Amino acid sequence: MRIAVLASGEGTNLQALIDELHAPGGAVELVAVAADRVDAPALGRAQAAGIDTEAFPRERFSDRPARDAAITAWLEAHGVQLVVLAGYMALLDAAFVRRWAGSLVNVHPSLLPAFPGMGAIEQALDYGAPLFGVTVHLVDEGIDTGPILLQEAAALPAARTPEEVHAALRPIEHRLLCAAVRAFADGGVRPDPGHPRRWLVG
Amino acid sequence: MRIAVLASGEGTNLQALIDELHAPGGAVELVAVAADRVDAPALGRAQAAGIDTEAFPRERFSDRPARDAAITAWLEAHGVQLVVLAGYMALLDAAFVRRWAGSLVNVHPSLLPAFPGMGAIEQALDYGAPLFGVTVHLVDEGIDTGPILLQEAAALPAARTPEEVHAALRPIEHRLLCAAVRAFADGGVRPDPGHPRRWLVG
Repeated sequence: MRIAVLASGEGTNLQALIDELHAPGGAVELVAVAADRVDAPALGRAQAAGIDTEAFPRERFSDRPARDAAITAWLEAHGVQLVVLAGYMALLDAAFVRRWAGSLVNVHPSLLPAFPGMGAIEQALDYGAPLFGVTVHLVDEGIDTGPILLQEAAALPAARTPEEVHAALRPIEHRLLCAAVRAFADGGVRPDPGHPRRWLVG
Repeated sequence: MRIAVLASGEGTNLQALIDELHAPGGAVELVAVAADRVDAPALGRAQAAGIDTEAFPRERFSDRPARDAAITAWLEAHGVQLVVLAGYMALLDAAFVRRWAGSLVNVHPSLLPAFPGMGAIEQALDYGAPLFGVTVHLVDEGIDTGPILLQEAAALPAARTPEEVHAALRPIEHRLLCAAVRAFADGGVRPDPGHPRRWLVG
């Protein structure tokens, strides 16, 4: 399966996919990594692994739909079958989401539907929740509202800072994201015929 | 510690408190069980354990504040120090919540703040979440918005009906509720000085 990753930042989830799953010519091949910033460290990680990269900074395009259409065209030129959002901070427009419906995955650092959107870990800390977690979900046109594929909780009752929460969640993010991508590549991700919003994984 | 339970239905959480913790004259003594319905089976469970009971059906009072004031008076007459809502389905008015602030505990069958209010399990099933859970929290004037004391997740990716989810959650409800009440009785529940909404338990 030919996979693309969109990232904005450090790219640690991308690195996990490279380390755990990436096999050129194999069952899971990362073929394209795009960023919304030219200086995203994720691009360097991809290049070091020999993966094609491209930056799509907002200012190079007339508007967001034009940018997102350019990303789709670039992904299509790479024969991409699954798009993974791994710390991609820009909103994607509705046309992009529809084009990749069912093949567009996001990893979010909360137990959705709790704490959607930006600053999920900060939201959870402010709420005082002792349980944090990670959700891998399909992307729909809402903010982190798509069907959930995988979810795992982490009890961190003494956590005080976003940094320590994120450090605890990062290995869970890597594990769940790799599991979801592997399941897609194995053909093991499909809609549950008995439920309009549930997907079977594995 | 002298403890009261308010219930509306079967009273399985009440039964767990009776079986696990209730010790007449001991560290945890259930001294009063009230219901909003005269036919709540919880009342029979309490009576079988020798605990005072009273029903406060809405139609006996001019309005909800009058009913809730009567409940408070009855609890105060029993020297109650902690009030546990265990499947109590009626809303409590703001005066009641303020009177028992910090000493009023609810058990809710979801990972709050996800799926607050009525039908939490049905809400979670409709959402398609694979992770369910239980929250024990202090009650404030919102709907299931008070500070969380304890929270535990349960992965039920194949669950289809509210009944099977509730069956899986019920032992968790019993365990968390007993742990919270025991912590209160031990003096181990206090506000976290470093966080406006977090409480330390145990």
